[in-house]
Amino acid sequence: MSPDVARLTIPTASDVLAAQARLRNYLDVTPTHYAERFNTWLKLENLQRTGSYKVRGALNALLAARERGDRRHVITASAGNHAQGMAWAAYRLGIPAITVMPKTAPQTKVAGVAHWGATVRLHGDTYDEAKAFAAELAEQNGFRLLSAFDDPDVIAGQGTVGLEIATAMNPDVVLVPIGGGGLASGVALALKSQGVRIIGAQVEGVDAMARALKGDRSLRDPAATLADGVRVKEPGYLTARVLHELLDDVVIVREAELRETLVRLALEEHLIAEGAGALALAAGKRIAGKRKCAVISGGNLDAGVLAALLQDVRPRPPRKPRKRTQERLTPPAARTSSPAAGQTVAPLRTTPVRKTRIESHEEVLA
Amino acid sequence: MSPDVARLTIPTASDVLAAQARLRNYLDVTPTHYAERFNTWLKLENLQRTGSYKVRGALNALLAARERGDRRHVITASAGNHAQGMAWAAYRLGIPAITVMPKTAPQTKVAGVAHWGATVRLHGDTYDEAKAFAAELAEQNGFRLLSAFDDPDVIAGQGTVGLEIATAMNPDVVLVPIGGGGLASGVALALKSQGVRIIGAQVEGVDAMARALKGDRSLRDPAATLADGVRVKEPGYLTARVLHELLDDVVIVREAELRETLVRLALEEHLIAEGAGALALAAGKRIAGKRKCAVISGGNLDAGVLAALLQDVRPRPPRKPRKRTQERLTPPAARTSSPAAGQTVAPLRTTPVRKTRIESHEEVLA
Repeated sequence: MSPDVARLTIPTASDVLAAQARLRNYLDVTPTHYAERFNTWLKLENLQRTGSYKVRGALNALLAARERGDRRHVITASAGNHAQGMAWAAYRLGIPAITVMPKTAPQTKVAGVAHWGATVRLHGDTYDEAKAFAAELAEQNGFRLLSAFDDPDVIAGQGTVGLEIATAMNPDVVLVPIGGGGLASGVALALKSQGVRIIGAQVEGVDAMARALKGDRSLRDPAATLADGVRVKEPGYLTARVLHELLDDVVIVREAELRETLVRLALEEHLIAEGAGALALAAGKRIAGKRKCAVISGGNLDAGVLAALLQDVRPRPPRKPRKRTQERLTPPAARTSSPAAGQTVAPLRTTPVRKTRIESHEEVLA
Repeated sequence: MSPDVARLTIPTASDVLAAQARLRNYLDVTPTHYAERFNTWLKLENLQRTGSYKVRGALNALLAARERGDRRHVITASAGNHAQGMAWAAYRLGIPAITVMPKTAPQTKVAGVAHWGATVRLHGDTYDEAKAFAAELAEQNGFRLLSAFDDPDVIAGQGTVGLEIATAMNPDVVLVPIGGGGLASGVALALKSQGVRIIGAQVEGVDAMARALKGDRSLRDPAATLADGVRVKEPGYLTARVLHELLDDVVIVREAELRETLVRLALEEHLIAEGAGALALAAGKRIAGKRKCAVISGGNLDAGVLAALLQDVRPRPPRKPRKRTQERLTPPAARTSSPAAGQTVAPLRTTPVRKTRIESHEEVLA
């Protein structure tokens, strides 16, 4: 925690509404898609500009700063998506931006930042190392250091995801991935007063926020994970305060579950999520709810990683749908025609690909 | 052309509106997503139930038949998506369905049909062989043979795609893939009177409709293509009549362009399209328009095929965005502080990943 953070005020639902008004001219509402086989709505932030929700917080922070007359240049540290969001926002507003990213950031994310004309500096192996370096640069050069999550404007911007979900499908539970906690805080601020349960999702061994919320603020190196976007060692201070108040629960997802969910999302729903992007949906399996919505937070996954997952992970086939009218197949004409004489076609015999309930057809068709 | 088809009436815009009213209780409106780097809106029928628009026509045909009191069982031939759409529709309405698919149909499509409890029969290597077999079975058993495209109810159902596009983004051009021509006909019926240009897309060597519209009705074996969904030897009779009236142009796409578009769609937009699903977007490159919309018609692609494409195809990086305010990076504090003494951090030197326009930054940051 940097000493400045404690001085910042915790954002409120009003700040989220103000952010929505600011972002309206720049960002379209992303789709909320019902995934039938998961029985879950998906908030598609992988279809957001720059491929993740992070552009919301970054853009809100830049616009709010402009309103306040703060014209400092902005530097940021990011595992990738915050940097991309910042680069896009800075490009749209004609402001220069500098980003520090860990050397381990996915190529697609580094390329995304460069695409929008921001300066990229690769430093360290983790988000936390990149952050420390960005802080030093900010102090030396008088830049504004914008946290990827521990900032009221950023939190309020991310919260607009929650407002859009509520408008689209009236949820009873919303699941969000947690790294630093910016998205979860914002969504909780937006939705908690509407009686929506907010559930966070973290990966096994990358659960700093879950531990912090239980009072364990010890710093442990996060485990290796596909979900690079949430691989944070030290969770936010502001975000932890918000989540302590408003978060209902955290689900810890195993890495294998995460991979399977990511591949199912690709094959069954035709959507590409990055590791962190599939996390909330993976957690959804453990949570009851009639109108569940999981935030697919981003889609920036390297091509090679996706190709390898598609080859290695073979998810079990989805469960059969339950209700099915067991009408018997009795074609009206079959009884009257005489199939025995002059038959040119081999008798229709069903060839089920997997076990299908077609026994009742056999007698008629054979 | 089967002799029955000539007796069918050509559907009108009213039929498309009637279909929309029928489908409203069963299918959500799919998202229309603006793809910034393509400067094209995408109608996401890969997010449709069963992963393609085909469910619209199948469901409309079943519902319309029920209204007419036609209670025959339905048999259909399909390269895969029509069969899946039919299976889902039949499942929802509690009606039995039988589908004949070519042996070359993708596994994911065959599995999809079986998932919804329909009977699957694999026959022949092409859609046309499967169709001939389905016709024989229909005649023998008194089933209703439902064409995948050459049927007024099916065309009207597919046309609801066009109505949804017009509501979402007010297009000047809409691009649609053409196999048998059902989607293109329906969309043209829905949108032509609104002054929208309708452009068809076909693959090189799989261009039966393009030839038919020029008067060449000769049957040629279609070339091998990733776009199995449009690999049709004999285009529709009804659809050709509609398209002769209403289609503005057909773009023939090369197989390599199709592959590159499919991979770019995955990496840049995080959307999985099947071959035919990326076809209209690939054609869009050749068509001018201020508000272009391409129908991403389906997303049912085998995991192995997608993995191979992601490894083999390396699309060129997208063009840099054009306008960018060339503000000089002159941090306010940098001038007043003395960076020479007591410097703990290496001087900030930009490390562009690809060539970025950051020359102006160097002098300040070095």
